[in-house]
Amino acid sequence: MFNKILVANRGEIAVRIIRACREMGIETVAVYSTVDEEALHVQMADESVCIGTATDNCYTNISRILTAAEITDAEAIHPGFGFLSENSRFADVCRKCNITFIGPRPEVIENMGNKSNARKLMANADVPVVPGSKKPLTDEQDAVQMADELGYPVMIKASAGGGGRGIRIIRSQAELLNALGTAKQEAATFFGDDTMYMEKYLEKPRHVEIQILADKYGNVLHLGERDCSIQRRNQKVLEEAPCPVMTEELREKMGQAAVRAAKYVGYQNAGTIEFLLDKHNNFYFMEMNTRIQVEHPVTEQIVGLDLIKEQIKIAAGQRLEKTQEEINLNGHSIECRINAEDPQKNFMPCPGKVNGLFIPSGLGVRVDSLLYDGYEIPSTYDSMIAKLIVHGKDREEAINKMKRALGEFVILGVKNNVEFHLNILNNDDFVKGIYDTNFINDKIF
Amino acid sequence: MFNKILVANRGEIAVRIIRACREMGIETVAVYSTVDEEALHVQMADESVCIGTATDNCYTNISRILTAAEITDAEAIHPGFGFLSENSRFADVCRKCNITFIGPRPEVIENMGNKSNARKLMANADVPVVPGSKKPLTDEQDAVQMADELGYPVMIKASAGGGGRGIRIIRSQAELLNALGTAKQEAATFFGDDTMYMEKYLEKPRHVEIQILADKYGNVLHLGERDCSIQRRNQKVLEEAPCPVMTEELREKMGQAAVRAAKYVGYQNAGTIEFLLDKHNNFYFMEMNTRIQVEHPVTEQIVGLDLIKEQIKIAAGQRLEKTQEEINLNGHSIECRINAEDPQKNFMPCPGKVNGLFIPSGLGVRVDSLLYDGYEIPSTYDSMIAKLIVHGKDREEAINKMKRALGEFVILGVKNNVEFHLNILNNDDFVKGIYDTNFINDKIF
Repeated sequence: MFNKILVANRGEIAVRIIRACREMGIETVAVYSTVDEEALHVQMADESVCIGTATDNCYTNISRILTAAEITDAEAIHPGFGFLSENSRFADVCRKCNITFIGPRPEVIENMGNKSNARKLMANADVPVVPGSKKPLTDEQDAVQMADELGYPVMIKASAGGGGRGIRIIRSQAELLNALGTAKQEAATFFGDDTMYMEKYLEKPRHVEIQILADKYGNVLHLGERDCSIQRRNQKVLEEAPCPVMTEELREKMGQAAVRAAKYVGYQNAGTIEFLLDKHNNFYFMEMNTRIQVEHPVTEQIVGLDLIKEQIKIAAGQRLEKTQEEINLNGHSIECRINAEDPQKNFMPCPGKVNGLFIPSGLGVRVDSLLYDGYEIPSTYDSMIAKLIVHGKDREEAINKMKRALGEFVILGVKNNVEFHLNILNNDDFVKGIYDTNFINDKIF
Repeated sequence: MFNKILVANRGEIAVRIIRACREMGIETVAVYSTVDEEALHVQMADESVCIGTATDNCYTNISRILTAAEITDAEAIHPGFGFLSENSRFADVCRKCNITFIGPRPEVIENMGNKSNARKLMANADVPVVPGSKKPLTDEQDAVQMADELGYPVMIKASAGGGGRGIRIIRSQAELLNALGTAKQEAATFFGDDTMYMEKYLEKPRHVEIQILADKYGNVLHLGERDCSIQRRNQKVLEEAPCPVMTEELREKMGQAAVRAAKYVGYQNAGTIEFLLDKHNNFYFMEMNTRIQVEHPVTEQIVGLDLIKEQIKIAAGQRLEKTQEEINLNGHSIECRINAEDPQKNFMPCPGKVNGLFIPSGLGVRVDSLLYDGYEIPSTYDSMIAKLIVHGKDREEAINKMKRALGEFVILGVKNNVEFHLNILNNDDFVKGIYDTNFINDKIF
């Protein structure tokens, strides 16, 4: 086992990693920018190294972080999420410097980071991807035939497209014949290339993802799913496990697909396969996150594993201790991301000084947070300041517990989304578990 | 189910009960003395009623509490622990006023509250009690014969005794013959009665107790044991579940004895049977606590039940939802009682104003507390200000997690026993699980 780990991150995830290390008897090194001098992760770590200022993006500065690891004799680096966590070059440089990167091999990060490459790999691994044309559409007849094969609605997309340009959602043959020409024209104008593809269009899907763990000896476990459909500005804001509409059969199918995916690419460490799930329980590979995720605690609560400790043990060469049959899901867990932001102003970040704090607690309530009373939330980084996680015997108890805990949360001095979360939890459709990725736009605003 | 419950208590247990009620959709009424006007339980309850001052023991004032219940239309009263929780008259008056007392029937409180009566009842229920003479010792010959039957060491006690007077620990026949006369003389002097009894003396026993739940329909469950041997001034200070030296077989025997005890006396609600456990795995009934206990969270963590909610459901006439076969123990839990006291000055209470607070959190850490930053801990009541509870996959992880969490705890402004707990957790014998009720005197001081 490692003697010392450098945490190449900040905020609650850095605190989370430091706590896991301390419980394992591993020393920790924090890195920080000058604005984070007073941050909780710096106060909690055994050692800390200042690596830059707010303006020079120091948390993604590979050479400074490696220098910090070398001068402190850290044997491994945990990248957390964001920043360098999915940077294959960083993982590669760590390897060359003989410092263990706590994550998958650089080649795997690279492979899965390229979205179209990942889509091909997954199709080869027999993991369902959104159905679509495998080569460009040649003409109107070809397009009509493809649409009939896929079934309406479909989506036509410019090969060279991006930023939503050159995309049309098509609900009938008449619409298709109408749109194809103008879409091609738009693509030619914007991208100098009128090549078009077609994909099945998923209406109001759910975002359901599978957590996996893979050791260095080819053993892969899936730990059930998380439903992350509740999103604002395409960012997850509330997650739960299990997914309210999951069946045993579907979980087994999705879990096996995730394990197949991980094995196919030679994955090691903790990872997540994100799927879109439609109304008919069809699921399609969206992307793989080759790192720990923000919402990992809801899985920890129902599975009873510490995923950060598992990451560290895997990186140190240990075998997974459990078999798939020993993974049981107990109860229900929900996470609310508490952000310093103004939901009424398009979730604009609201940094500032916390001048009064009461953090909820009690049975089944967990808070992973960077907060302390008097802390000055900087404007430089992400607006997430805490994750409030609850665990109940069933979904109803979890919802009631979350409402109780949100009701206790007091953060004076900065605008936050505690009330906004209460609006979600009080929504009838949410309570029934009926929601999709459009929920916040459709039902809350 | 009840619409409104009055909480006849203060401090963390009042907060604990209010949280459970809120999650169940039940309104709450706090009662408080003038010193507790700013207390957390008052701030958290839906309504509150001032029932007196610090000097008039208002939390044990039956008529004021019932008046508060009547003017607020509370349908039930939760007594917590301490104060009126084991007062059979209070339970009886509640019944006469048609307010549900959340606890057993008054007759049962009365029966089990009288220690010698409880000992007789338990012997009748075939629950082991400390072996001893069933009638007074008649003469030296009788005493020698009884001691031979029990096996040395034995204890001779004045029937009318109390406060440690008239008690002798006897390790041989010579000592017995020597001591009997002077002990009788002492008893005659102090109590005007020289009648003596003999009991087996248990050397350095462990304090191991069984949590039970009993509904109104004769169903009784046992929820495993707690080891509460770590005591200071005869008060528990650190508790854990399971007991480190427990075997499956012994747990089954103790659990069945506890269920037998509860059934024999017609017990209803949550209760605890306290046993002394000797080195040879013999266990003896000590007393029954006919209420929720301070250390109930360690059982909640490993069993996955909310004992306060269970109490409320039982009192409302619901049946237990689980069978004995469905009770599984998962992992290991430890509780440290955080007291505002000075361990170096014989644990003298140290009230005062909290002027800086950081409460530990994260995976597997729970804090049941009355604290908030700026709170003035009054000198009037108990010195316990928080319970820090951890849950790990095994005892080793629980110990490491508790050390991590204690290390994070910051309470500025009042002396406390956080460091003292770290001394216990760092002790080799504690880590090995080798300890008894003399541990703190023998190993820490």
